[in-house]
Amino acid sequence: MTHDNPSRLFTPGPTRVAKPVREVMAEPLIHHRTDEFRDKVQQVTTGLQEVIRTQQPVVLLTSSGTGAMEAALSNVAKPGEKVLITAGGKFGRRWQELAAAYGLDPVVVEAKWGEPVAPSEVQSALSSAGPVKVVFTTHTETSTGVLQDVAAIAEVAKAAGAVVVVDAISSLCAQDFKMDEWGVDVVIGGSQKGFGVPPGLSFVALSEAATRRAERPGFPSYYFSLARGLKAVEKWNTAYSPAIPQVLAMAVSLAMIQEEGLGNVIRRHQHNAQAVRAAATALGLELFASSPCNATTVVQPAEGKAGDIIRTMELSYGLKIAGGQAHLSGKICRLGHLGFYHETDIYTLISALEGTLTELDINPSPGRGMESALESFQADRAVSDA
Amino acid sequence: MTHDNPSRLFTPGPTRVAKPVREVMAEPLIHHRTDEFRDKVQQVTTGLQEVIRTQQPVVLLTSSGTGAMEAALSNVAKPGEKVLITAGGKFGRRWQELAAAYGLDPVVVEAKWGEPVAPSEVQSALSSAGPVKVVFTTHTETSTGVLQDVAAIAEVAKAAGAVVVVDAISSLCAQDFKMDEWGVDVVIGGSQKGFGVPPGLSFVALSEAATRRAERPGFPSYYFSLARGLKAVEKWNTAYSPAIPQVLAMAVSLAMIQEEGLGNVIRRHQHNAQAVRAAATALGLELFASSPCNATTVVQPAEGKAGDIIRTMELSYGLKIAGGQAHLSGKICRLGHLGFYHETDIYTLISALEGTLTELDINPSPGRGMESALESFQADRAVSDA
Repeated sequence: MTHDNPSRLFTPGPTRVAKPVREVMAEPLIHHRTDEFRDKVQQVTTGLQEVIRTQQPVVLLTSSGTGAMEAALSNVAKPGEKVLITAGGKFGRRWQELAAAYGLDPVVVEAKWGEPVAPSEVQSALSSAGPVKVVFTTHTETSTGVLQDVAAIAEVAKAAGAVVVVDAISSLCAQDFKMDEWGVDVVIGGSQKGFGVPPGLSFVALSEAATRRAERPGFPSYYFSLARGLKAVEKWNTAYSPAIPQVLAMAVSLAMIQEEGLGNVIRRHQHNAQAVRAAATALGLELFASSPCNATTVVQPAEGKAGDIIRTMELSYGLKIAGGQAHLSGKICRLGHLGFYHETDIYTLISALEGTLTELDINPSPGRGMESALESFQADRAVSDA
Repeated sequence: MTHDNPSRLFTPGPTRVAKPVREVMAEPLIHHRTDEFRDKVQQVTTGLQEVIRTQQPVVLLTSSGTGAMEAALSNVAKPGEKVLITAGGKFGRRWQELAAAYGLDPVVVEAKWGEPVAPSEVQSALSSAGPVKVVFTTHTETSTGVLQDVAAIAEVAKAAGAVVVVDAISSLCAQDFKMDEWGVDVVIGGSQKGFGVPPGLSFVALSEAATRRAERPGFPSYYFSLARGLKAVEKWNTAYSPAIPQVLAMAVSLAMIQEEGLGNVIRRHQHNAQAVRAAATALGLELFASSPCNATTVVQPAEGKAGDIIRTMELSYGLKIAGGQAHLSGKICRLGHLGFYHETDIYTLISALEGTLTELDINPSPGRGMESALESFQADRAVSDA
């Protein structure tokens, strides 16, 4: 059913792909060792530099975001080094699993799922742990909908002399990110989130300190060698055959972002997220995240109802939302509004949610969600216009 | 220029993408954690099993073929083990580079570039080297156009008790491959060669012996963990967010192959390759490979002329062919005819080559290439009809 209607993917990622982005993927294939393709690589990497606010080089990898996380960890951390991981959800845990795969024994600063890690706790852990070389953290935790204060985490980590690696896969375009200003050393992103491009392409931006580490990796590294990637991107190449359609799609997506203006894109995400939260609350759904992000709204319905809501959203309305992961499976619903979503799409989401809750007799209050979303949009516009 | 005409990519890979394959990539994105997508994974993995003639499971990875090579090496070989590599071109050398990245010290059986490695030499090396655990080889060496006798190499390797890993990235669909019958343990392929799908997806098929090794990998492995991949594919899943458009495209491509019949597809590649070789020879171009494959024809023009030919093919005719790699740069031309190419396409290639050689005054003999291609096609049809 979702296949027939492009507007119906409301998952935290992959996110909906806009028509012009899809269309470029269907064009006759161009070869990647050509000036035409190198122009695209240049457009994409410089576009990404604008989105993450950096002057540093950006390496493109053909992999999911997890591949880019592994590239960062295996190229930047070294065997036997002390590293620190912040974890409060499935993607924080992914850093832990990656560290374990590489035999690292990380200091883990954990937050309860649904809450962000406090920068002060990171600071305490850093001072008691002895010299920590690398800090791995997550900007927005897709599994819980939490936004973490990576600027503050980076500040305490830099003060302790650590290199800072940020998984920003699900935050870029939805939240402000200032790599250079915040002193972040490695930023990881993927095509299938805020950029509204299908999965298949990821990227890693590296500071000079991170580059020095990547030039002498301590773990085996070939396909994910960032030194190789940096050398390739100097000439707007990729080290290996890239996912060409996704590169072309990223160029279109970044042009759309440039046209709208990055500030407006982030503002639109905030505008939409506020309305979704207002509507969900009005419909009696508890918000799961104590510091919610602009990308995904996570709601916690009454015990045992999450699965029914997800199924009904799909069967009755053709809208695909996501459930919980790990121990949150069956306990939460995740409503994605990351990427090219506009007010009309949010109304589509809210009206389907209202219909679903009414159908399932879960606090039925038809109209209340739409009313709250509308009020939120209007109030937000009034603030913007003021 | 290539961008406007889908028929003009004659590189060894990426290869041309047929219209129905391209079109499915432009459809509204479906989510990968759905029955609809799992159906596609099932279609693709079972279709691949037919192409490589195996009953063994096939793991899909979002990466280029090199990523799948690294997955095979890092999951199947173990630290300190003796391994053997056959090398006679850039992709044999890639096995060497990968082994070096993992600190392995391989026995290398080398052939002169343009010639295949003799199975008897592999046998000798295996008996003098002591117990070799894994043999890495290449089916068709894209850099030289050479076809290697992997059935015979596998036979001697199995006899010596080694696990056999074959890079079949550029051979599948163009050459017969019989994984189970030949006793091959690991087969590596990619989307962008014989399947005529853009780059971004690779795959690894594993025998039971290879699976047992992959279940206890000796090197760090996470994104490329084949144990994880095998577990995912049991339920027609992928371990991480896959390159969804390429998976859908592979399903279309494999359906096209099934419709044509795998035997006919391989036969068509042979039919085309014979004609290209006949025409090139008639045009005075020396064939570089002593045992040429059906995927790519490599010709060696007079000293210093290869670059002129490649440029003129593109500028005057809009056809993209490839040059040499490593020390063959500027010395050879590689004409790709792997994937969905038919007689008309071969005529396009040959006529442009004739025009180019005439324009450059390199053995000008207008008509001779076309005449030879036509004769080759007719003779081959006569054999088929007999």
